[in-house]
Amino acid sequence: MLDDTYFMKQALIEAQKAGERGEVPVGAVIVCKGRVIARAHNLTETLNDVTAHAEMQAITAAANVLGGKYLNECTLYVTVEPCVMCAGAIAWAQVGKLVFGADDEKRGYQKYAAQALHPKTEVVKGILSEECAVLMKEFFAAKRRAKG
Amino acid sequence: MLDDTYFMKQALIEAQKAGERGEVPVGAVIVCKGRVIARAHNLTETLNDVTAHAEMQAITAAANVLGGKYLNECTLYVTVEPCVMCAGAIAWAQVGKLVFGADDEKRGYQKYAAQALHPKTEVVKGILSEECAVLMKEFFAAKRRAKG
Repeated sequence: MLDDTYFMKQALIEAQKAGERGEVPVGAVIVCKGRVIARAHNLTETLNDVTAHAEMQAITAAANVLGGKYLNECTLYVTVEPCVMCAGAIAWAQVGKLVFGADDEKRGYQKYAAQALHPKTEVVKGILSEECAVLMKEFFAAKRRAKG
Repeated sequence: MLDDTYFMKQALIEAQKAGERGEVPVGAVIVCKGRVIARAHNLTETLNDVTAHAEMQAITAAANVLGGKYLNECTLYVTVEPCVMCAGAIAWAQVGKLVFGADDEKRGYQKYAAQALHPKTEVVKGILSEECAVLMKEFFAAKRRAKG
């Protein structure tokens, strides 16, 4: 079944890759007509670049695949609620549908820029939220343990 | 005099370059300890990428130059008020000071995400605002004329 849960699992695989390389474990995939056209995970530490969030890279990659910068026929799946920066990019790209897993109460766009998305972007939240949140919690718990 | 007006003129030179290649004319420079360490202009059409705003590229470039992703000792000069996406990136980078020229009432962060910036980021606005705004107005007027 190629439903939201299926594609969120693909985003979770990306998030796990990020975690394995010491990055905050967030993953994203972009789907167009039932096909994954872009996969990305957070690389801010590796690339030394605050703009290298999973969603940003996925949007850039998907536009490359499609040869057009608007993603109105695409769905972006991301394991954690996008931040303000990513919500702004999702708006510029006019993403057709946004699906995210876990809420991010501290840095998520809903708190700071609730009107930031394009009015036509459909939003679905809470898909595999537990799995998405557990990855984040375990990552930060391990970081705190490492710090002593 | 290496003051805000001087560096905004550098950002205006970048904005003009954008306009000359058919891009919405927005330019940015990042200054660290009195030295320009990054220059960029909007390239969304050329790169077919909504994330290629002047500020985003400048932040990525400056982090590369400094070898660290935080820009708390830097000033970002941009000819037009940053959008929500760029304000989010400016926050993540913890930019020390943000200086912009013209307001952007339609897409600027002040309307949609007034709290998006890092609380320690100093904001100065209105530097050469007339020159910055004229570039934008002329660009869009020419576009409308071309459309007939």
